[in-house]
Amino acid sequence: MSITSFHQLAEITPHPNKVRIGVVYANDLAALQSLFDKTIRLHVFPVLIGPKKKIFQQMEERNYTDYPYELVEAANEEAAAQIGTQLVHEKKIDCLMKGHLQTRTFLKAIVSKEQGLVSDSLLSHISVNQLPNYHKLLLTTDGGMVAAPTYEEKKKLLHHAITVMQSLGIKKPKIGVLGATELVNPNIQSSVEAEKLMIEFEEKFSDKCFIDGPISLDLALSQEIASIKEYTSAVAGDADILLGPDITTMNVLGKSMTLLAKGKMAGLIMGAQIPIILTSRGSDAEEKKNAILLAMSVSRGGEI
Amino acid sequence: MSITSFHQLAEITPHPNKVRIGVVYANDLAALQSLFDKTIRLHVFPVLIGPKKKIFQQMEERNYTDYPYELVEAANEEAAAQIGTQLVHEKKIDCLMKGHLQTRTFLKAIVSKEQGLVSDSLLSHISVNQLPNYHKLLLTTDGGMVAAPTYEEKKKLLHHAITVMQSLGIKKPKIGVLGATELVNPNIQSSVEAEKLMIEFEEKFSDKCFIDGPISLDLALSQEIASIKEYTSAVAGDADILLGPDITTMNVLGKSMTLLAKGKMAGLIMGAQIPIILTSRGSDAEEKKNAILLAMSVSRGGEI
Repeated sequence: MSITSFHQLAEITPHPNKVRIGVVYANDLAALQSLFDKTIRLHVFPVLIGPKKKIFQQMEERNYTDYPYELVEAANEEAAAQIGTQLVHEKKIDCLMKGHLQTRTFLKAIVSKEQGLVSDSLLSHISVNQLPNYHKLLLTTDGGMVAAPTYEEKKKLLHHAITVMQSLGIKKPKIGVLGATELVNPNIQSSVEAEKLMIEFEEKFSDKCFIDGPISLDLALSQEIASIKEYTSAVAGDADILLGPDITTMNVLGKSMTLLAKGKMAGLIMGAQIPIILTSRGSDAEEKKNAILLAMSVSRGGEI
Repeated sequence: MSITSFHQLAEITPHPNKVRIGVVYANDLAALQSLFDKTIRLHVFPVLIGPKKKIFQQMEERNYTDYPYELVEAANEEAAAQIGTQLVHEKKIDCLMKGHLQTRTFLKAIVSKEQGLVSDSLLSHISVNQLPNYHKLLLTTDGGMVAAPTYEEKKKLLHHAITVMQSLGIKKPKIGVLGATELVNPNIQSSVEAEKLMIEFEEKFSDKCFIDGPISLDLALSQEIASIKEYTSAVAGDADILLGPDITTMNVLGKSMTLLAKGKMAGLIMGAQIPIILTSRGSDAEEKKNAILLAMSVSRGGEI
């Protein structure tokens, strides 16, 4: 089984228990549009945290007030972020989403030692990409959160990525650990670590994934090129997950996918008690919608 | 002025002095096809080095023997590579092109201390990309040669890139030094160096280029995103050159451009006495043709 589009995630049968999404500082039109979108609202129950009056007004203008939702008053960004994490601790929400506030303020509450939500000592950024020129959804990590992952951190990035892919129904996702070539070059630390990751994951987690590394992008994604170069592996031409050496490589790849390859992207933060939706300033309602669909699937842990 | 396609390079008026391209181990059908292509042969004079009989036979089969060319006998790959460099020293050829031999053997002759061709203490790889979703040719470096450039090496990469762009008629190319964001992060060495490069080049080479760094891929290439993020610079949304932090980032970007963004690529090695065409195993005649057009322009140093 493989998933080829975000649209497929929207087509699943509504679950009797809706996923409760807490939106921090929900006075954000694009966020509201995505939450009350006709396919999304079948699956989610929005818990909107922020200035009640302002949010209600935005909802009324769009005729969203007829659908189920909850409003929780918060006077400012900091208060909203704190209430959001509190509601997670009280098991009242299943996902947290950033609304109209500074990323810094939002994350500060999540990583707070007292009341924060970090469960895995590392938050990571996952991008799931739908590409016109690739035959299924492709997960890339980490292009947004962990600047220069150590070897131990790369293992966590992989576990987060596997969790996401498994929740999308891919039981044994195929992982490519990216390099400039398929050869290990002792002068390129990331290529050495790529091979080490492959060996360790093949030994310990062969029931959870296929893995190959270092592998170049073309060998990971193109069966045709793998065949020309006579390169065979379980991953070649069919990767579900791409792990990169650092944030710059994966940020550049991610942006080239949306900008030059006209892909669609859904982003997610993993490593907290619940999946976190953190879309950027420039994200439109569709990008937010795709991120909600993804978070919803992860939150349900594979009940897709 | 800006160049939007390789096709434009082919449309220039033939120069009375053809560019003499030495092909090392020229018994390579894709290389011959590209050299005798009807647009290319107006501009180049092929000097074909290798097993004469075999090359002649391949040419006869395709009816290429009526066009001007020269055959130089070489018994094996090593001999061909050595003759190629010798002919450069004798000023008998203007460009060198890899034919049907190991890259290692080809490069060994070029970097040889006795008879090699290295003029700048560093060979670098330049990719020029024609992309369906970008408004002009885009140069990226270095995704193929220099694994982990030092600060001093990055300056050389930039000089090579500027030379190439200027030979294409872009008098003051716009350079983006890539980062994950536009902010300098002391934990990310490449972002620190990106800013340092910007300051140094603005001070010393403001007549030769515009430069911005660190800059993210979307800000460098998309005027729309730069405008949403209220980011202004001479480079934003209009980069001619992208310098990356290391080979993996730029290799991944290059491959995503050809594979996912359906771009066309021409590769070139700079830093030798003459431009060097080193296309990969998988390259077809069109890719070789584009590389020849590019090398031709660089060889003529801007007489386009």
